[in-house]
Amino acid sequence: MPELRQDPITKKWVIIATERSKRPSDFPIKQDKKKGGNCPFCKGNEDKTPPEIMAYREQGTNRDTPGWWIRVVPNKFPALQPGASEPEKQNFYLTRPGAGAHEVLVESPEHNSSLANHSTQQIREIFHAWRDRYQALVNQDEIKYIQIFKNEGAVAGASLEHPHSQLIATPLIPPVVAEELTGSQSYHETQGKCIYCEMIKQETQEKTRLVAENEHFLVFCPFASRFPFETWVITKQHQASFEEIKDEQLQDMSEIIQGTIQKTAGLLNYPPYNMVLHSAPVGYNNAAYYHWHLEIFPRLTIVAGFEWGTGIIINPTPPETAAKYLREVSIDHGQEKEELSWQEIH
Amino acid sequence: MPELRQDPITKKWVIIATERSKRPSDFPIKQDKKKGGNCPFCKGNEDKTPPEIMAYREQGTNRDTPGWWIRVVPNKFPALQPGASEPEKQNFYLTRPGAGAHEVLVESPEHNSSLANHSTQQIREIFHAWRDRYQALVNQDEIKYIQIFKNEGAVAGASLEHPHSQLIATPLIPPVVAEELTGSQSYHETQGKCIYCEMIKQETQEKTRLVAENEHFLVFCPFASRFPFETWVITKQHQASFEEIKDEQLQDMSEIIQGTIQKTAGLLNYPPYNMVLHSAPVGYNNAAYYHWHLEIFPRLTIVAGFEWGTGIIINPTPPETAAKYLREVSIDHGQEKEELSWQEIH
Repeated sequence: MPELRQDPITKKWVIIATERSKRPSDFPIKQDKKKGGNCPFCKGNEDKTPPEIMAYREQGTNRDTPGWWIRVVPNKFPALQPGASEPEKQNFYLTRPGAGAHEVLVESPEHNSSLANHSTQQIREIFHAWRDRYQALVNQDEIKYIQIFKNEGAVAGASLEHPHSQLIATPLIPPVVAEELTGSQSYHETQGKCIYCEMIKQETQEKTRLVAENEHFLVFCPFASRFPFETWVITKQHQASFEEIKDEQLQDMSEIIQGTIQKTAGLLNYPPYNMVLHSAPVGYNNAAYYHWHLEIFPRLTIVAGFEWGTGIIINPTPPETAAKYLREVSIDHGQEKEELSWQEIH
Repeated sequence: MPELRQDPITKKWVIIATERSKRPSDFPIKQDKKKGGNCPFCKGNEDKTPPEIMAYREQGTNRDTPGWWIRVVPNKFPALQPGASEPEKQNFYLTRPGAGAHEVLVESPEHNSSLANHSTQQIREIFHAWRDRYQALVNQDEIKYIQIFKNEGAVAGASLEHPHSQLIATPLIPPVVAEELTGSQSYHETQGKCIYCEMIKQETQEKTRLVAENEHFLVFCPFASRFPFETWVITKQHQASFEEIKDEQLQDMSEIIQGTIQKTAGLLNYPPYNMVLHSAPVGYNNAAYYHWHLEIFPRLTIVAGFEWGTGIIINPTPPETAAKYLREVSIDHGQEKEELSWQEIH
């Protein structure tokens, strides 16, 4: 019998479709061959992007020239742009200027690198830069929410293959975040606790959905997983906003995310995936009920007519099965393969 | 400047990304070659599906044998199955059996046919069968909502290429439907009118987003379109549930949907698409505030990290642009091409 499971925060149901139950080998991944070539994010091509907003670079090197290891630039085709954003009635409808920001964070000067094969130090620099840009943008007028995300692979929405993440700052609290706030605030009002902290406690006790753990972070497959092999990376310490992440947490976050990506890569042959930050809106840093985390999901299934019509997502792989595979996969495989391609590009 | 637009019913915002503005030729569609072969939905292969629930067939022919022109069977890998569905606490979480129904409606005995090239009479039979199944399922216990949808093309989630639509009946009112009910009910309380009827009035006056019209139906690109070339097909007469559609409406619905599919096919080279029925839940047939309709969207963009994190969808094609293209495209092209392949298979 298939099972309906409710996300305890948003109260949304997913269908765990046991009749379609899927193992890793049931999701054949066709590797996109990286084309390389005329890439605007490669070192030496700095003039192919808008002028850099920020970079971590060797002393004595100039803006918009090589010498950087992390580089942040405005998106050339921005979804939102700086400006004021007053809602305006347009006959029957409501519209407002698309004000905000849209930045690209180039994660490495090397085209063929990835989160699975960077040095842990480089990954730490990426998340350090996420924090820098987050902290810079919360102070800008009009910005209510900062969405940092990573699309890896064409199927997951990456239009450029060079490793990068993106940041879109919005002039309103987005609906997904509003739902999380409503659900977690309501839990806090009735139970006097942070629902995310309670979830950490529950997952640590139950263990069946745990994937990995270190001093500051936990990785688990959520009870109401929407996607096969979906994982959440959550800070054990209560913290509403990613803005407040401390240096020692950054280190642990880098290690555990790299491990998770390597496990997923080893198990599913480097699937396309999205990695999505969920953090408190601007001004909510002290919220006792909200708790920032990252959601990572390989793109193995297709969200089709039923999901769009209902908002109920069908997931063929129970999270307990996914977590068991992820716990047991050796990341040596991934690392070995990756170290090879890492050597190739040097 | 990009523009944020609010869906007047759900109050959700979309980004119309003018900086990324896209014309039909910017979406190259790679045609999947139809493989045919050992298809469980083809005539003669009736024993490859579970026993039929219903069929429109020639007099004197037997169940589960050829002679049908529409055939409804249970999905072999159901997302939901008949049974009781009591919620149950599982430690911290809530779960319930995946009770409901999952049926496949085979739209033709011919593998290579499609909504674009069926006779209008055949399309009428498809929607007639939708109504039959809808009316049968509303009377079953446990069923609160009936979702009928069509996934066309692998990118849109179709795992079998033979033309078919699907029906999934759920034991709860899904979140997307609940949002529509809340939004439309609230509008009705303050304005005393059906918001969908008002939208029909507005679109008919404004004309810029209109695509087609006949006596009973209107097709338009919604103001807050989430997808390039998204269209809504709506009955002009106020009607909460698809269950109540009348014969004369079925005829008009068939003609206008075929025209819309042919226009989309001609403009975008037969793109993969989803077609999704939005209808009132079981027991809401008299709702003065809800209004059933169909949403059709070609799958030309990828819903990626930003959309999953925020619920705000980025659409590179303004609906006014899409509607203009759809109004102006001649459907002769589509028909000519299709008539050819229709002849081929006879």
